[in-house]
Amino acid sequence: MTPSEDFVVTDRGGIVENSHRVHAAVVDAKGRRLYALGNPERMMLARSAAKPAQALAILETEGFAGYGFDDADIALMCASHSSEERHIARTRTMLSKIKAEEADLRCGGHPSLSETVNRSWIKQDFVPTAVCSNCSGKHVGMLAGARAIGAGMEGYHLPDHPMQGRVKRTVAELCDLDVRDVEWGIDGCNLPTPAFPLDRLARIYAKLAAAADGDGAGEGPSTRGAALARIFHAMAHHPDMVAGEGRYCTALMRAFNGAVIGKLGADASYAIGVRASDETRRLGTDGALGISVKIEDGNLEILYAVVMEILERLGIGSPEIRSQLAPFHHPQRVNTMGVTTGGVSFPFKMRGSKADGDDPRLAALAR
Amino acid sequence: MTPSEDFVVTDRGGIVENSHRVHAAVVDAKGRRLYALGNPERMMLARSAAKPAQALAILETEGFAGYGFDDADIALMCASHSSEERHIARTRTMLSKIKAEEADLRCGGHPSLSETVNRSWIKQDFVPTAVCSNCSGKHVGMLAGARAIGAGMEGYHLPDHPMQGRVKRTVAELCDLDVRDVEWGIDGCNLPTPAFPLDRLARIYAKLAAAADGDGAGEGPSTRGAALARIFHAMAHHPDMVAGEGRYCTALMRAFNGAVIGKLGADASYAIGVRASDETRRLGTDGALGISVKIEDGNLEILYAVVMEILERLGIGSPEIRSQLAPFHHPQRVNTMGVTTGGVSFPFKMRGSKADGDDPRLAALAR
Repeated sequence: MTPSEDFVVTDRGGIVENSHRVHAAVVDAKGRRLYALGNPERMMLARSAAKPAQALAILETEGFAGYGFDDADIALMCASHSSEERHIARTRTMLSKIKAEEADLRCGGHPSLSETVNRSWIKQDFVPTAVCSNCSGKHVGMLAGARAIGAGMEGYHLPDHPMQGRVKRTVAELCDLDVRDVEWGIDGCNLPTPAFPLDRLARIYAKLAAAADGDGAGEGPSTRGAALARIFHAMAHHPDMVAGEGRYCTALMRAFNGAVIGKLGADASYAIGVRASDETRRLGTDGALGISVKIEDGNLEILYAVVMEILERLGIGSPEIRSQLAPFHHPQRVNTMGVTTGGVSFPFKMRGSKADGDDPRLAALAR
Repeated sequence: MTPSEDFVVTDRGGIVENSHRVHAAVVDAKGRRLYALGNPERMMLARSAAKPAQALAILETEGFAGYGFDDADIALMCASHSSEERHIARTRTMLSKIKAEEADLRCGGHPSLSETVNRSWIKQDFVPTAVCSNCSGKHVGMLAGARAIGAGMEGYHLPDHPMQGRVKRTVAELCDLDVRDVEWGIDGCNLPTPAFPLDRLARIYAKLAAAADGDGAGEGPSTRGAALARIFHAMAHHPDMVAGEGRYCTALMRAFNGAVIGKLGADASYAIGVRASDETRRLGTDGALGISVKIEDGNLEILYAVVMEILERLGIGSPEIRSQLAPFHHPQRVNTMGVTTGGVSFPFKMRGSKADGDDPRLAALAR
């Protein structure tokens, strides 16, 4: 296969080993597309990248405030965490806040997303249960939402439960889509997971960042705007809750120190919300930005490298900030004897929406 | 991305989750192409699928017979084994046959390809060393070859060592290519690994199977033919040495009981040699067949499913044989609560080389 303009390529000794098709969209909070790669309208399952939108549906239930969830709890609702002890402990505390028990959860245990945690589990013959699910925070949130709307916790995870109906409507509203245009799959954690075009995922994250800016371009200073801003700040200020030690989402949000949020979805989707700054203004918008990426074949290592390459081309974050994330951008390809065998390159070209909107790498290099 | 004729697709609730481009070639021992998929001439790194060709270069060294290697040893030379105790023990025995030591090996330890073995290593705080490398048999073979040709074991793994020069020439001869048309990368185990067009990999395996048939169409009843036949039979009769419990190569060769050999290469290449039978004759050849497959993005789960789909469409193996391998053909996509979330489908269409050579699925269904 000749690598085309939409591909990432790995090599071994200069010979193409694998190639990976990439789709991406860069939009503002009104959904205006600034840059695209591959098919920015690819219908896709956002998986865990949809968690902030699912969290919004929870935060907007009438009785939510009464539970006393704090910002770290909200960050855990948006998490695909590593099942570290702090994540499991917080899950249990959140359950106690809504007077629910682990047995009420309808997710299952699985190996941790952290190899360190896994090794310790194996050494202890530990069998992970529902509170260890990387999605445990979202599940407690759904239980809370189900109870808050008086629909009962039973069956909270089923597509026809009123809480999931709310989630679907909320997702559709954030996407500026009719609810009939959002589709459902069943996620790894057993909750329904929404499907919609990739650029709509970028729009959701642009709205989250715009709300954090207090910018009416997204959802404004409304009740919804306040909830979106709370979610953004919860994630940005508790990056350790959103993923875990050594994981990309945590490293990204630590490095950017409140300026961006980023969230992984399984099978290689990613979304980033970027608050307004001189950097976003240079790209031709006066507000926040959203970025969404999907690797066609679901490869996570390639996903992180592509997200970093796009941030660099867009000139988002200082070189100092991005250098903290360099191992994700240029993953070392060394063999069992420590010899470098090849690398990852990015022949893709981003398309601008304007006549003069060429690959932002040129603009970035010109600065 | 609209799935085209060269793709495998995974879905979640009927929505396309990932797609994977596939390349494949089906050839006879003279290299005549019977069927193709994607780009059958894609330049590719055969990785461990090249091991039988590397083993041939070892078997053809003048002093090889004196070491007393048996067929299970030769199978281990062709292996990407799971580092089970039997594999490590045999590696040590092979080292003693050539009066070498583990310290002479230039490969490194790594986590086992078997999760069962890994768990037991973690429980014991075991740190794998060179004899545990999944390529340990190949490395002992290279040491043996280096010593047999009097070139010395030092630096046996380097591209300019005389033994590696022999390997490259042998690979080129099996491919019917000029040696200058075979390229080198460095493998995960630190040996040079050859790159050549995908359909040449199928040709190598067709020659291995033809040699097992005693068929001169490959390399004939020559010295080389006898060595190729020995490699085929060693792999076919010691499938437990070539991979390990639960692994595809082992399961495939057990199920086919001597009629085929199959070998994985890292980053999702696969090669199969099929001895002549009524099944191969139905496909329009009077001799053995070779099949090679490469998944463009390196996904192993998809690779095994595609190999099974191709075997089914070609009508190779009875339904009873293929049913033993069904979990590889149709991998279960269930979530942490045991709910089926989607599946893998094979919209690809194989192209025949003859005017009437359509997708063999039609022929298979007509039987």
